[in-house]
Amino acid sequence: MRIVQKFGGTSVGSIDRIRKTADIVAAELARGHQLAVVVSAMSGETNRLIEMAHELSPCPAERELDALVATGEQVTAALLAIELQQRGIDARSFTGGQAGFRTDSSHVRARIQRIECEHLVRCLEQGRVAVVTGFQGIDEAGNITTLGRGGSDTSAVALAVAIGADVCDIYTDVDGIYTADPRVVAGARKLDRISYEEMLELASLGAKVLQTRSVELAMRYGMPVHLRSSFHPVPGTMVTSEEESMERASISGVAYNRDEAKITIKGIPDHPGIAANVFGPVAEAGINVDVIVQNISEHGLTDITFTVPRSDYNKTMELMQQVCRDMKARSVSGDDSVAKVSIVGVGMRSHSGVAKKMFEVLAAEGINIQMITTSEIKITVVIDEKYVELAVRALHSAFGLDREPGQRN
Amino acid sequence: MRIVQKFGGTSVGSIDRIRKTADIVAAELARGHQLAVVVSAMSGETNRLIEMAHELSPCPAERELDALVATGEQVTAALLAIELQQRGIDARSFTGGQAGFRTDSSHVRARIQRIECEHLVRCLEQGRVAVVTGFQGIDEAGNITTLGRGGSDTSAVALAVAIGADVCDIYTDVDGIYTADPRVVAGARKLDRISYEEMLELASLGAKVLQTRSVELAMRYGMPVHLRSSFHPVPGTMVTSEEESMERASISGVAYNRDEAKITIKGIPDHPGIAANVFGPVAEAGINVDVIVQNISEHGLTDITFTVPRSDYNKTMELMQQVCRDMKARSVSGDDSVAKVSIVGVGMRSHSGVAKKMFEVLAAEGINIQMITTSEIKITVVIDEKYVELAVRALHSAFGLDREPGQRN
Repeated sequence: MRIVQKFGGTSVGSIDRIRKTADIVAAELARGHQLAVVVSAMSGETNRLIEMAHELSPCPAERELDALVATGEQVTAALLAIELQQRGIDARSFTGGQAGFRTDSSHVRARIQRIECEHLVRCLEQGRVAVVTGFQGIDEAGNITTLGRGGSDTSAVALAVAIGADVCDIYTDVDGIYTADPRVVAGARKLDRISYEEMLELASLGAKVLQTRSVELAMRYGMPVHLRSSFHPVPGTMVTSEEESMERASISGVAYNRDEAKITIKGIPDHPGIAANVFGPVAEAGINVDVIVQNISEHGLTDITFTVPRSDYNKTMELMQQVCRDMKARSVSGDDSVAKVSIVGVGMRSHSGVAKKMFEVLAAEGINIQMITTSEIKITVVIDEKYVELAVRALHSAFGLDREPGQRN
Repeated sequence: MRIVQKFGGTSVGSIDRIRKTADIVAAELARGHQLAVVVSAMSGETNRLIEMAHELSPCPAERELDALVATGEQVTAALLAIELQQRGIDARSFTGGQAGFRTDSSHVRARIQRIECEHLVRCLEQGRVAVVTGFQGIDEAGNITTLGRGGSDTSAVALAVAIGADVCDIYTDVDGIYTADPRVVAGARKLDRISYEEMLELASLGAKVLQTRSVELAMRYGMPVHLRSSFHPVPGTMVTSEEESMERASISGVAYNRDEAKITIKGIPDHPGIAANVFGPVAEAGINVDVIVQNISEHGLTDITFTVPRSDYNKTMELMQQVCRDMKARSVSGDDSVAKVSIVGVGMRSHSGVAKKMFEVLAAEGINIQMITTSEIKITVVIDEKYVELAVRALHSAFGLDREPGQRN
């Protein structure tokens, strides 16, 4: 097989971790596979570099930031290649540019345009391990670019697609995707498989396991992504297209996010454009609005409720006081102790009654639902934060997630 | 004017030092000059990177070492460009490859073959400051190479030659070349000018101010090199061709080096090849032999005396015990408390009696000369270390170096 392996910052965060990563590479190589290894910067290194830049300038030139932070992965790639060669393995490091990553010129948030990987493929065919810096490339003019935070996952998947790999193994500090957070639900089970769509919904719920961009890319090209632990040599969770998933249960998992705050503006005189008036200032402040609910208009007045990350709560409340005055709305209120709980599953599409069951389960536990939002394969409710564990456990049990997929109702 | 400025590791060793370096760049730019700035890695950074590599392998792959340590200058170049842009100066960083440095493929000791500097020259002509990583380039296949320790001086001079600069300013932590070490001779004077040849002789005496390779390159292309302080904004010492030097005194300076040890093998049966027998094992051990004196043969036996760096004394003595046995020589003796004192000056060529005067001055002070070696513009003696200061002061005074050049005898 031809495999792309990707190791994140904690997997290469020290000399000792680099040795352990080399163990994993060596073991896969011994199985006769062709290997391209994509690495991140040592954990903490990117922040160290960015802090130096910020000591010099509150707003450092982005082209230079890219040249600066790109050194982080270059150091890791060289060190891992040194360790592999030390073991007699023919390995060599490649910068993004050397590996053929060509991007647009949007510094600090570049998009990969193509990968000119002929040279790298020749290396693999000769049995050489290619150690490639993630997160970076060069533009047409040869300037160093970076893909933005978390771009190493995207580098790995893009490289896997370009070289026609059979699978892209993403090594991380968790050993896969679970039906629920094992710290909350004792019976949570590791999923052997999950669909790209479900993975995207989980990522949007704050599961930091895999960058959304990389999942989208894998989905577009049908590249199987194997999420696995760099600490334990066991199979993780395979992210694949839905068709490859056997015997799907109606839902795959229960997720939650405590980092939520809720803001309500009441009694807004209803006319076209009020959403823009409310959310314009929030967007300009760089705050991500998540769930939005607008009530139907009554007596020409309407209410809007939305959630933001909890760290942006105070700032958003200030903005909304002003918006309230400008729009002559009645009042602004907020609550920074709410949480989101979601159930996710491609099986929802064909199983009716999933939403009804979810609401019944929560009601039976006496949990009040404050907001609801749904997508084709996800139902999210906003509830009081103190009920999070209760809600997650009740839903996990009610949907039979602690049993084998074939034995669920 | 078009100027190449080079800043070493201490000049960019901290965020604060980078700001001060930007002050110097900004001041030169304000004078209307075109500037290319060559930078080293932050002091200590190259060693930090190499130590990580050595933790992984006693003998790290050289191609990967180059990729690893090249990040050091890339960080500095990006940071300096950020600081310059922060001040409203149009600046951008260039890696060795981006600046057009093409080298051979001898990793960790590459030689510059050519500099494809059209792009960089266009930048300068547009009034943009080019900040270039010293010490590195790429080979024909695009692999990152480094020029070896101290290569940043060579990068700067080579770039100055390639872009047709008027001068190459080397900023360092000393403010020029002195007629003698000011710590030893109170009346030591800074030289306004020195010839390439003299500079080479001083470099070979252990003056770490300028890499020998860079001086040779400057001499070959007649590039004036201005050695100056990054701490004090005063003119330093201009290294130029001899013809440009006005009114030369017979000697330019007195230099010394304490880091010397002397070894003598006595009673070697004289036949062709004995020098190879003696110095072969030394060279194989990577030890640099400096002064060598061989006495004329007497009764078919000869003596050889030579000096090595003091840190290699014990190892060399061991090797010579073996050589002595193998060659059936009479004895080996050594002294690790000797020092070299030299007088240097292109004026020697036309002034006879310089050597005679030197020996007389030392004799008058009661200093015994143990070895003598001469070049066209340098006379070196090896003496007991305890007389070093006395010898340097006496020679400095006797040759009138504490007076203005025109007033010397």
